[in-house]
Parts: sequence; structure tokens; C-alpha cells
Amino acid sequence: MTTSTSSVVLDDELLRRLEKQAIELPSWAFGNSGTRFKVFSTPGTPRDPFEKIADAAQVNRLTGLAPSVALHIPWDLVDDFDGLRAHAEDLGVSLGTVNSNTFQDDDYRFGALTHEDPKIRQKAVDHHFACIDVMDATGSRDLKIWLADGSNYPGQADLRGRQDRLNESLQKIYARLSDDQRLVLEYKFFEPAFYHTDVPDWGTSYAQVATLGDRALVCLDTGHHAPGTNIEFIVMQLLRLGRLGSFDFNSRFYADDDLIVGAADPFQLFRILFEVVRGGGYANPDVAFMLDQCHNVENKILGQIRSVLNVQEMTARALLVDQGSLRAAQVSGDVLAANAVFMDAFYTDVRPALAQWRETRGLPADPTAAYLSSGYQARIEAERVGGAPAGWGA
Amino acid sequence: MTTSTSSVVLDDELLRRLEKQAIELPSWAFGNSGTRFKVFSTPGTPRDPFEKIADAAQVNRLTGLAPSVALHIPWDLVDDFDGLRAHAEDLGVSLGTVNSNTFQDDDYRFGALTHEDPKIRQKAVDHHFACIDVMDATGSRDLKIWLADGSNYPGQADLRGRQDRLNESLQKIYARLSDDQRLVLEYKFFEPAFYHTDVPDWGTSYAQVATLGDRALVCLDTGHHAPGTNIEFIVMQLLRLGRLGSFDFNSRFYADDDLIVGAADPFQLFRILFEVVRGGGYANPDVAFMLDQCHNVENKILGQIRSVLNVQEMTARALLVDQGSLRAAQVSGDVLAANAVFMDAFYTDVRPALAQWRETRGLPADPTAAYLSSGYQARIEAERVGGAPAGWGA
Amino acid sequence: MTTSTSSVVLDDELLRRLEKQAIELPSWAFGNSGTRFKVFSTPGTPRDPFEKIADAAQVNRLTGLAPSVALHIPWDLVDDFDGLRAHAEDLGVSLGTVNSNTFQDDDYRFGALTHEDPKIRQKAVDHHFACIDVMDATGSRDLKIWLADGSNYPGQADLRGRQDRLNESLQKIYARLSDDQRLVLEYKFFEPAFYHTDVPDWGTSYAQVATLGDRALVCLDTGHHAPGTNIEFIVMQLLRLGRLGSFDFNSRFYADDDLIVGAADPFQLFRILFEVVRGGGYANPDVAFMLDQCHNVENKILGQIRSVLNVQEMTARALLVDQGSLRAAQVSGDVLAANAVFMDAFYTDVRPALAQWRETRGLPADPTAAYLSSGYQARIEAERVGGAPAGWGA
Amino acid sequence: MTTSTSSVVLDDELLRRLEKQAIELPSWAFGNSGTRFKVFSTPGTPRDPFEKIADAAQVNRLTGLAPSVALHIPWDLVDDFDGLRAHAEDLGVSLGTVNSNTFQDDDYRFGALTHEDPKIRQKAVDHHFACIDVMDATGSRDLKIWLADGSNYPGQADLRGRQDRLNESLQKIYARLSDDQRLVLEYKFFEPAFYHTDVPDWGTSYAQVATLGDRALVCLDTGHHAPGTNIEFIVMQLLRLGRLGSFDFNSRFYADDDLIVGAADPFQLFRILFEVVRGGGYANPDVAFMLDQCHNVENKILGQIRSVLNVQEMTARALLVDQGSLRAAQVSGDVLAANAVFMDAFYTDVRPALAQWRETRGLPADPTAAYLSSGYQARIEAERVGGAPAGWGA
Repeated sequence: MTTSTSSVVLDDELLRRLEKQAIELPSWAFGNSGTRFKVFSTPGTPRDPFEKIADAAQVNRLTGLAPSVALHIPWDLVDDFDGLRAHAEDLGVSLGTVNSNTFQDDDYRFGALTHEDPKIRQKAVDHHFACIDVMDATGSRDLKIWLADGSNYPGQADLRGRQDRLNESLQKIYARLSDDQRLVLEYKFFEPAFYHTDVPDWGTSYAQVATLGDRALVCLDTGHHAPGTNIEFIVMQLLRLGRLGSFDFNSRFYADDDLIVGAADPFQLFRILFEVVRGGGYANPDVAFMLDQCHNVENKILGQIRSVLNVQEMTARALLVDQGSLRAAQVSGDVLAANAVFMDAFYTDVRPALAQWRETRGLPADPTAAYLSSGYQARIEAERVGGAPAGWGA
Repeated sequence: MTTSTSSVVLDDELLRRLEKQAIELPSWAFGNSGTRFKVFSTPGTPRDPFEKIADAAQVNRLTGLAPSVALHIPWDLVDDFDGLRAHAEDLGVSLGTVNSNTFQDDDYRFGALTHEDPKIRQKAVDHHFACIDVMDATGSRDLKIWLADGSNYPGQADLRGRQDRLNESLQKIYARLSDDQRLVLEYKFFEPAFYHTDVPDWGTSYAQVATLGDRALVCLDTGHHAPGTNIEFIVMQLLRLGRLGSFDFNSRFYADDDLIVGAADPFQLFRILFEVVRGGGYANPDVAFMLDQCHNVENKILGQIRSVLNVQEMTARALLVDQGSLRAAQVSGDVLAANAVFMDAFYTDVRPALAQWRETRGLPADPTAAYLSSGYQARIEAERVGGAPAGWGA
Repeated sequence: MTTSTSSVVLDDELLRRLEKQAIELPSWAFGNSGTRFKVFSTPGTPRDPFEKIADAAQVNRLTGLAPSVALHIPWDLVDDFDGLRAHAEDLGVSLGTVNSNTFQDDDYRFGALTHEDPKIRQKAVDHHFACIDVMDATGSRDLKIWLADGSNYPGQADLRGRQDRLNESLQKIYARLSDDQRLVLEYKFFEPAFYHTDVPDWGTSYAQVATLGDRALVCLDTGHHAPGTNIEFIVMQLLRLGRLGSFDFNSRFYADDDLIVGAADPFQLFRILFEVVRGGGYANPDVAFMLDQCHNVENKILGQIRSVLNVQEMTARALLVDQGSLRAAQVSGDVLAANAVFMDAFYTDVRPALAQWRETRGLPADPTAAYLSSGYQARIEAERVGGAPAGWGA
Repeated sequence: MTTSTSSVVLDDELLRRLEKQAIELPSWAFGNSGTRFKVFSTPGTPRDPFEKIADAAQVNRLTGLAPSVALHIPWDLVDDFDGLRAHAEDLGVSLGTVNSNTFQDDDYRFGALTHEDPKIRQKAVDHHFACIDVMDATGSRDLKIWLADGSNYPGQADLRGRQDRLNESLQKIYARLSDDQRLVLEYKFFEPAFYHTDVPDWGTSYAQVATLGDRALVCLDTGHHAPGTNIEFIVMQLLRLGRLGSFDFNSRFYADDDLIVGAADPFQLFRILFEVVRGGGYANPDVAFMLDQCHNVENKILGQIRSVLNVQEMTARALLVDQGSLRAAQVSGDVLAANAVFMDAFYTDVRPALAQWRETRGLPADPTAAYLSSGYQARIEAERVGGAPAGWGA
């Protein structure tokens, strides 16, 4: 129906900035996941961390955007982290952020870092020490903490005591980090069946990490907010306060949907990336870009390819905003002109130019097509037979 | 800190109306459940439908409020439904609504009654036929259909075609019912990771069942609405339209939390029950009261006891509203007086009077205490060793 | 920063379909509006319906998209509707939908069509009769009813009685319409300070109009839903049920914001228009496209120009969807391929091609620039001095 | 239908604590208010600050709960603040918090303390200096700042620059305060038609005031949060951080409804007050209790009486919580027992005991009835004829 002859040309400066983009992939995106009702398994699903990293490396090979892989402990525990590291490097990627897990043990039924019982708190702290040991082995910089701590019924928990105990636990963990390591604390508005979560909002995460030290920062998961929340405002504020440590990118329609980033509200992703650029967070090593997604009904590797391309394309649009014209319109109070400059960048179709640029860098113009014709999917489906597919439980 | 000497006296007429209250328990509330991350198991959890019904019968024995148990197929499939029925009757309860399940089979990855593939749709229809066979065996009146049909990404599904196919499938199922059986279609605002659900709101459920016949009705699950929805308005409307078939009671703070009914917003439960009474839905066999809850971190039998008591207590408060004074204030436009009549009933402490009344009926004044001292929990913890605890997967 | 050499080419068939687009403008968008706190006035604001229509005609002159203007009674009451009609026709536009107003009179403090007092209900019904008289004079087809009926406190109102009285009142109004006139009932999720609204959702509007007759339909205002509502699903359902009478387009971030359509969530607008096309609602005279917006801080005429262009551009994208490829991907269960077809159309930059096409039709390529250089704004600012600017109160 | 013979007895310790309760009334609650559509006026509405204070004094006279009145500048500007102060003292009340207003002047169309133009920022700062002058005259301790600063469209405003300018402006205002005065910064999730607000959440307010000094604090308006927000968690956190300066109590169903506190979700109010008590915020002069409400369709004085009684009754329930049993249940992980202790207090009917206690203090048992029989309403309706009723515009 359409003939697209050519398109916008992206200038060299913009392309140089785009070249610096790096998005960390979550190892768990390659394993199975699902809802409380059902996990749909797919042929070719990795059975161990080595296979997950192999899949992640495909995404990087085809897009040039995903040079590192985040690990989740204990899901990605191996006997030989040197071996895992070497495996990753052989495939052109590195091991990145280490994520702790204190939400799948019976002891943590009523909390982990916040638990009433000091023994269980210490167990949770010890788990983080073990994660730091992994970081030492993998060369990872960031320890990311997402807590499922909370309560289900009013009165069940002493909200204030839990907050104080959380701080004590975080102090211990932070003290164990080496000088080039960081602690990143994620917040989340709600969990299913919860009355309260112990780190529900950016304010709580900020107030907690601010007491720890300069290398304690906030992780902003784009799916962890109340309906209607202006997320780009929070991005701006955390950058302004010097505490935005990382993004967990994904998208959502209603809840913690963990869909492909940009799938639910592309314009919101644009606004977020605009604020990242505006606030000096782009191509800034202090602000890590990561995905945190599930692929329940779609192909996982293609889902990850689509995700990093979505971030790249939207970053290009954010970089296209004519900052001079925008400021002029803002200063003069010309609402419609300012909005028009903003929307002009958003509506610009950067895809053909990015495809061309990709080719000049030795990458496929169409990474999805390249993957489909690569034979990789058929190979893993044939090879990965027997054994348990990796999932959130292992 | 307080001395409660006496309290409100409930008159005979009100007690006669309360006597008619019956709340169906879900068999699955006695099995394990959890989130996508973790299921916490508890000692004594039933391992089969017979044990679930035994637990449900305890709730009825102690409260006099729960004379029937809803089944979920295939979770509650047994070889001998006559035996299950006799077992229930021996314990003083009956088998109630049959719930179908089309959300835990790989074939249903992209829908069941709405699927693009006629073979899969027929498989789902056939499952409902099998459920009707169970109903014939158990003497159940209602077939309840909750669908997890929907899609995760925009464009993935043809919304309109799915709606038409849903209607075709429902027509087939409805045609199979006998004249004293009913079809009840539940709606749900969202599923985690979903872009759309095929029956998202009461309007869709109503429009669908209205095409089927008089014995097709809507099920209102109190946890299945958008934030801020005025649920009692929907109760009023469905009663007015003659299509309110049943309630799934539970409560929620954010999502489909399935917490104890009345736990999150007691005043909302009061308003709902007020509209039930106002609209002739109370003690009306056409409007079934059921629970649909999970007890992830709390004792399940005690959780169910608390739930039916919450419904009873709030029904008593709804019946206490002085309808004459209320109407007078409404007609005269006296906003504060009308609200005061309404709130007066809500704030009245009916618990002591209900405890006394319970004793006059040969029931324990405090069903929770009675359960705790009954030894039942210790017995099931001792006896139910070995075998797999029942859960949503079986 | 960018050089856009050329772009997508829109084929003739698509352009022929676009040619049929007509979007009705609301007269009140040209008057002042604001919040409960403050109305910011602007120079050049119309002081009477004649001046509002003159401004609306500018939008049509520059875009070719807005051939009619909706009236609001009593805000647009004039002594001589024949004169108003001739004035409109001289300027190349027609008078469209008539909107009633039962929310600015002390008598309506506790409702209008639903009021307890039959005299006040009759007054409200009579107002609608007067609106029908206006329709007869203007040749308008549609009577649009939006009600601010509701209550502020639980208990204040008898929800059920109000619903029944609403139906009685609507019956009377509907009976007065001539055979070529229609009644369109708008729903709205909430009003500030309200506990309940009498027509809160599409289901209620549908249930009400279904009892009236074939020429009673639902108006869907895109800003009148709960957070997270899948609006395109409702579009699909109402088209399927044959009851989608009209759209009130606008956009919102949180509440009933009445911002420029497409400004808050362009992708949602795309999905809505896709369902309109899918369901046969596009270029279908039975489904009226209207704006319902306020321009509190921006230039009003430019705001309306931007709005109709947003609808046009997004309609072009919706028409660009490759329906054959989409269906193929849907049928085969290829989630990512289906989504990719969908997104490809959304991300296509149709603006240059539309600008070119506009010129071939004797319209300015850039209507905003054309307005700014037309001198019209300076003229109205100079001429419209003295008198009270039109607003929601007059 | 009911006979209430007696009820719970409140012990002396609890009554001693209740005696300390003081709730500040907003002068503007006694004036007219409304929506963007309509303001319903009522006979007897005050026409100036003296009359507003007279009405507020009635509330205090009948309840003993409202010893001070908040002022809003310029709505409550008078030539002679000494006279106003004496008038208040004659009536047994004092002048309390001073509220600034930067949202009703054309200059503030694009912001006040955040405006791009330094002259307009200075104008807004100067207005706060004038408010401090009023405080000096009235003896008020707190300057409360609620800003309508924000933007309507993405791109319209430089979010980051506005945040920095906000801080500069606040620094200037704070510096002007005397040592016994405080600055309290309110946050608000959204304004109708807004894309962003400059102080949307507690985190932003906290981050801003933390840079100012110890006497800069956060004001928590209970109606200013996203749907589903756990407000009592924020109460806990702000108390923990030592930055909870004051409450604006009201209630809401959807938006910033400003309904009577406790009217929409009484259990939420209970949870909030429980956290206030838990965190040492009760009867603590550092944490001011204020109402911020509108009475659009109900009698204003009776609305205020109902409001302070609601706070008192719910405070009594919060104080009734058996803290020892609660902690024991929490520590042992007995979810249902902990919740039961919590709910037991909530469901206790404290109203008869409070009525008795009121009489022992020389107050009417039923303040509403006492007001209705006092003749005050008839008197003000007769006397306050002519002149403009006070409202938000004056």
C-alpha cells in the first residue's frame, strides 16, 4: 500500500551519540515465565546460564546494542563463574548486574531484609554477601535489590519497624561492597495480594539509599508505578538528585506486565528518553539501561531484539528534538509551538535511516529477519532437548 | 482498654432475614495458591476434593453460613461424583457451582472459546459439556465461566472476530444446559501481561448473555474492576436489568488480589450489600453469593471463616439501614441527613448481637476460637502427610 | 539536525478514503474555559455564536476537515437560528449536533432527568424539547445528552430510582424526535466531588438507549473512562452492537482533561481509529466524529487545527495497516509479526505525504503556518474589543 | 429497628489523649465552591473573613475540636488583621495557618515559583513575603504552599529547570521566616488538564524541603495521590523522616474531590490515624491536623461539624487498638490474629461513649442536632443578605 522511497537523514553527531548506546539484557528473559495460572514453555528454551548467555549474545550480534547480560542469583548460580565469564566473553558479551532473590524461600514468607526475626534478616543479608562474591568473580559493578517484602493485610505488619530494619540490612550490605561496586534499590508500587510493599515508590528508595552513601542509587522500573504516574518526571528528579542508578525497561497496560519496552505507550518511552537526554543521563555510565521483561507468548530472542531496537529508535527520536527551538518556544510561553517541536521528533520515522546506518557498521539492516534466516532458532530447538527449561524457579 | 457491656439489639425480623444467608465456598480456597513467584505451602493442606470438602464443611459447621461448595474442573475431577456428593452430604454441605477451566492448557495459549482455530474452540466447548455432565452428576445448578482469553500485544488479535466467536461458543454451551441449569459469565478488567481481555466489563458480559436466554447471567467478581469503579452501581444496574446471577466476593487493594472479602474496603462491601438489599437481590435464590479467594500467607480455614462472618456482619449492617428515614432525607435533598442514616448503620457494631444470636442457634459465639480449640487443624496436619497438596495446578 | 528528502507515498485508494473525513468542531472550544480555580482569557475570544462559527470556519478553510459546528444550548442560543445557519453556510460550514445543558441551573443541584421532583424532571425534559426545536431550525440531526446527574455522598441518592427515572425522561425526549433525528447519550466515569454518576459507563448508556429505539445511540468521549480502560475494545463492541453514534475526541492524562486529541497517548488514538476502520465505522455517516476539547492555555483556533490534523494523520496511519499481513499473522499465532505489522503503520511518517496531498486540493501544506500568516488572529484581537468573551457560563 | 442500650466504655487514659485533639478549619470551607461548571450558592454564606470565622467558631463551640482557622491570602485579606485576630479570640478561636495563592492571576498562567520569567517568580515570592507579614500580624506559625504550577502539554515546559527554580524561590521564602515559623509544602498528584505538576508526590516535596532547613516540612493532603496509593505508608515514612508538618484532611472517590474526611473510605482514615499514633504524630504540635474541604451541595457548617467528629471518632478507634496483642501477633507471624486486633478497634462503635464524654465536658452530645436547634443557621440566612458571598474567587 505504501512506497517508502527514502526518509529522514540522521546526522553524524547524532549517530556518534547513538553508537554509545548499551542495553543490558536480563538472563531470565530467555527462560520461561508466566502468570500464577500457567507457564507456556517453548522449544529451544535454555536449560542453564550458559545457554541463556548464548541467546543473549545473539541479540547483541544482530543489533550491536546489548553487550552485557544481567544475572539473577540463584537462578544463574554456576559452580564456575570464571567459566561463565569466559563463555560470555567468547561470545562477545560481558556479565553485568547481579540481581538478588529473596522471594522464593519459605523463610521469606513474611519478608527478608525487613523480617521480624533477626536470623531471617541475616540469612537475607548473607544471600546478598554471596551475590557480592559472585560480582567479584564476574567483575560486575552493580548489585540490584528488588524486594517482595510487604504484607497482605492491614495490621499484619509494623510498617515503621520494617522500614527501620530495611535500613539496617541495607547498611550491612552496602558496607560489604568494594569501592567500585554499587547498590541499586528498586521500588515497586504493588504486588498482587499485597496490602503494602516496603519500597513502594521512588521517594522511599531515595530516602533509603541517601543514608547509605554515594554508591547507593535508585533503580527505576518503568512498570512499577501507580496508574497515571508521570514517570519522566521521576526520571528528571532522580537525575537532578544524582541518584538514578539504572532503568529496568519494560512496558505495561495495567499492572507489572513486563511487556516489550515501548509496546504499550511508545510516546511515554519517548518522553522518558527525552528526560534522560535532558538530564545528562544518556551515554552516562552511571545510568545503566537494562531490560526487565518476560516473553510469555512470543519468541523470546525476537522479543529481546525488538526491545533493544525500540529503545534505540526512541533514543534517536529523543536526540532529534530541536533543543534550540524547544527552549525558545518554552521561554516565550508558546505552548503549541513547544509541543510541536516535541511531537515532530516523535513522529519522525527514523527506522530507514537506522537500518542504513546499521549496515554501515556491519550489522544487519533488519535484525529480526536476520535472526529468522540465521538458523539459530532451529538449532537450539533441535539441540536443547531433555533437561528442564530454565524459568523463574531455577 | 475497653469494656463492652452490651450493644445493639437486632430485631427478630432482621434475624429472620439473616437466617436465610448462604455463601458458597470455593473448593480452591482450601488448596495452595500464590503468585507467579512463589507458592507457600502449609501443613494440612487438602490433597484431593474429598479433603477440600471436609475443610469447607468445618466452616459451615462453625458458622451456619456456608452450606455449599463450588467445584473447579479439572482441579476437582474425581472418578466418582456420586461418592463426592454423598461425602458432602454426610458432612452437611452440598456441591454447588461448577467452574470451568480453559486457562491451563497449551492449546489455549491464544484463547479458548474465542480461538482462531475451530478445533481448539470445540475442545473448549467440549470441556464445558464435560462440566455440564459433572453438574448433572452433582446436582449443581450453575456453570460459571471465567475466561483468561485475551491478548498481550496490540495487533496480536482481531478483537471483533474474537467477540463473535465467543458468542458462537457460548450459544453452543448454553444450548446444552438443562432447563434448571444456568450459565454465569464472569468479567475481568485485566490479566497481568494482557493488552486486552475478551470479557473485560459488565457491559460485555451483559451484551453476551442477553443474546443467549433467560438463564444466562452475569457473575460480578468484586475484584475485577478498574481503579475507582463504583461497584455498587453495577450491582444496582445488573439487578435492575435482571441479569445478576452471582457474586464472587473477595477484596483487593490494587489488582486481582483475592483477599478476604471486606478486608480492603469494608465500607465498599457495605454499599454493595445495601444495593443488593435495595434491589431485591438478598436471600433471592437467583443471586448466588460465593467467595473467590486465595489464602497465600494465612490459615485457609480460618480465612474462610473470617470471610463468611464478614459478609454476615456487613449484611446485618445493610439490613439495619433505616429505609424510611433514608428515603425521607433523599426526597427532601438533605444530603447530610441521608448520609448520616447510611453511616449510622455502617458504624453500628453488630458483632456482639450476632455472637449472641449464633449461640441461640447452637453455633459457637466465636467461630474462630471454636475452630482453634476444636483440634481439627492439628488433626489434618497430622493426617495429611504424603501426597501432593492441592493447588491451582491440580 | 535532520534532512527529510521525501517519504512514504500514500496511494490513491487511501487518499480517496481520507477525503471523506469530516470532524465536527465544538463551538465551545473557541470560548474561554478553565478549571474551578481560574479561567485565563485571551484576546480575540468570540463574544457570541456568530463569532464562534467564524473561527470554526477558519479551521475548515485551512484543513478541509471540519465542515460542521456543534452547538451548545443555551450557550449558543440566538434569536435567529435561520440567520445563524445562513452565516455558517456563507462561511462554508453547517450547524451540527445540538448539545443540551442541564448542569448550570440551581434547580439541577440534585439532578435533572433523574431528579426526585417530577417538576424538575419535566423542566429538564422541556429543555430537551427546546433543543429539538433548535435542531428543527438548524437542520441538525443529533441531540447529544451529557448529564452531570449524580451524587456526592453514599446514601444521598437512590441509585436505582434515578436509573428508572432517567429511562422515563429519555423515553419522553426520544418520542419527540423526528424520524431523521437521533438521540446520543454520553457516559462519563466520574465528576469531581462525585460519589456516583448516573451514566458512568458504556454499559449503562447502551442499556438505556437499547430500550428507546434504533435512533438512540451511545456517544463515546475518549476522556471519560477509568484509568487503564481499553477504549478501543469499547469502540469495537459498540460498533458490533450497532450502537456507536458518535465520538467526542480529546485526550487526557488523568481526569477529564479535554486536551488536544492525540496529545496524551497517540498510540491509543491509533488503536481506536484502527478499530473504527475494522468495524466499518470510518466514513460511515452513522458514526459522527466530533471534538470535545478546551484550550485553557493555548491558542484556541490553532488548537483546533492541530486537533483535526491529529485525527487525520492518525486515520491515515490506521488505513495504512496491511490488513492481509495482519490477519495472516493473527491466524498463525505469530504475536510479534502481527504486532510488527500494526506498529509499522503507526511509526510511518505520513505527514509529508499529507502536506503534499493537501496542496493538490487547494489547501495549505501547513495549516498552522497558513493561519499564523493569515492575519486572522490580529484581526479578531483588534475587532473583538468590548463585550464579554464567550465561555462555559454563557 | 435497633435498640442501643449501652456500648463500649472508653478509659480515662484514652479520653485524656482525645482531649488534646485540635483540628484546624479552613476559612474557605465556609464560602461557596464548586466545579468548573457550576457553583451552587447557599443562603447565609459568609461575605467576608469575619463572617467565615464566626461560622468556624460555631463548629468549635459545639465540638470542642476546632480551636483555630486557617486563612487563605488574598481571599481572607483584611485591612485590619489585629481586628480579625481580636474577633477570632472573642469567639474562642485563633488564626492559624496562612495559605498562599499563586493560581488566580493571569501572570501565573505558566507557573509562579517556577516561572521562566524572573519577574514573575519574584512577584510570587513577594506574595509569600506578604503572607509572612500576615503571619506576623496574626501570630500564625505555618506558611502553607500549594502550587498549581505545572504544564498542560508534553514539551511545553522544561521540567528540570522548573524544579531548580522552585528550589531557588523556596529558599528565598524560607529565609524570610522567623525562627518560630515554618514552611509547609503540599504535593498534588494532578490537576485537571495538566500533563505535569511541579510537586506531584511526597518524594518531590521531601527532596525540596530537605534542602531548606528543619522548619521546612511536607503537607500531606489525603486526596492528592494516585489511585491505589497506600497513604498510611507515606504518613509512616514522613514521620520517620521527621518531615510530616501537617495534614489536609478530606476524602475522595476519584480525583481531588475534597469531600468530608472519612466519607469515601473510613477504613483508610483509620489506617492513617493508626500510623499517626504509631509514629508519634498524634497530639504532637509539630504535626498539624487541618481540613481542606468543599461543601458544594451540603450545608457547610454541618459539613465541618461532621468532619471534625469523623476525625475524632476515628482517632478514638485508632487509640483503641490493643498494641500489645497486635505486636504479639505480628511478631509471631499470625496474620489473621494481627488483622483481627486491628479490625476489632475499627469496628468498635465509639459514638455513644464519645457522646457521653462530650456532655461531661459541657458540650452537646449531638453537635449536629445542637446546631440545628441553635437558630444560628436561620440567623445568618436572615442577616447575610446583600453583598457577594465569599468563594474561591475572593
